[in-house]
Amino acid sequence: MIKISITTSRRTELVPVMSLIERALRDLPAWDGLLHIHSPHTTAGVTVNEQADPDVAADIEKVYARLIPWNADYAHAEGNSAAHIQASLVGTFSLVPVKGGRLALGTWQGIFFCEFDGPRRRELWLSPIKESP
Amino acid sequence: MIKISITTSRRTELVPVMSLIERALRDLPAWDGLLHIHSPHTTAGVTVNEQADPDVAADIEKVYARLIPWNADYAHAEGNSAAHIQASLVGTFSLVPVKGGRLALGTWQGIFFCEFDGPRRRELWLSPIKESP
Amino acid sequence: MIKISITTSRRTELVPVMSLIERALRDLPAWDGLLHIHSPHTTAGVTVNEQADPDVAADIEKVYARLIPWNADYAHAEGNSAAHIQASLVGTFSLVPVKGGRLALGTWQGIFFCEFDGPRRRELWLSPIKESP
Repeated sequence: MIKISITTSRRTELVPVMSLIERALRDLPAWDGLLHIHSPHTTAGVTVNEQADPDVAADIEKVYARLIPWNADYAHAEGNSAAHIQASLVGTFSLVPVKGGRLALGTWQGIFFCEFDGPRRRELWLSPIKESP
Repeated sequence: MIKISITTSRRTELVPVMSLIERALRDLPAWDGLLHIHSPHTTAGVTVNEQADPDVAADIEKVYARLIPWNADYAHAEGNSAAHIQASLVGTFSLVPVKGGRLALGTWQGIFFCEFDGPRRRELWLSPIKESP
Repeated sequence: MIKISITTSRRTELVPVMSLIERALRDLPAWDGLLHIHSPHTTAGVTVNEQADPDVAADIEKVYARLIPWNADYAHAEGNSAAHIQASLVGTFSLVPVKGGRLALGTWQGIFFCEFDGPRRRELWLSPIKESP
């Protein structure tokens, strides 16, 4: 497993992480299969979506924040229940195709770290999995 | 990796793809483990849910379209931000159990390609993973 | 694959299952990589979130039930469409890091079986996957 660090700068923020991940993969022998991308946090997640137009990420941020409002009648005393719920909706991991040791997603797909309780210093944990048979 | 094609016919449409996937798996040697099912698109996803009663898929389509309305104050100029957000909610991939080279889901489970910006010609990318140890 | 049983006690209920899963893993030789945790049901799912404060799970239960109301104009005659939709939002599986045959998640992360149509007797199916290369 390889661990990489990310620094977020806003409460809700989709951070593009493709190039960061690709740089980390250079330390591994090439393989065909999948890469598991795990966010070890409970108020952040991972998603795959369009990265060509940054407005898409901005729209996703806005709608998640609207669907699950920050202030409501939550029980959790830390006050960040919305972030926990948003993380459960987007998911805490992704599993993406790899070819020859390089990410091999669809043409328009990018990978985003989804911060829901920033700004913070965060991590992503990367695990390679070989395709077989 | 095996790639299969799907043609969708409506803007929001859950297309059952179990039999299409099972046909594609016949080209592989049998294995026990998992199958990764990846949608290489940014306005479509994959989900596992009931396929016995098609009303379930119809209800899912309706509620996703209602949760994330097509017209709202989105920034993305292409006008399909709702589809990008719906794809992030449902997820762009699934990972399902396989036994002896055949899909081995729960009794009532089926696999659906989730179109959120159709009609279009789409793909699913299939990667086998052996269970171990 | 290892199958474990869970008994839920409410309609919507996030059940912590880390210790149940860890006990089941003792039957396997140690490995580094991932564990696939599959809910074979269509009205239940799996999520990873904070387990230190049970109020987080309570808040997630409440918000899912509010986002997708139980009674609405659903087509599915069984009357549990909300549960099917909630399952599609949270996802029917998780894939989590393992080190030396033991779950190796982030400090605050726990694994929850997400019941949306209980109380029922349920299962989780566990498949180990070795990291490679």
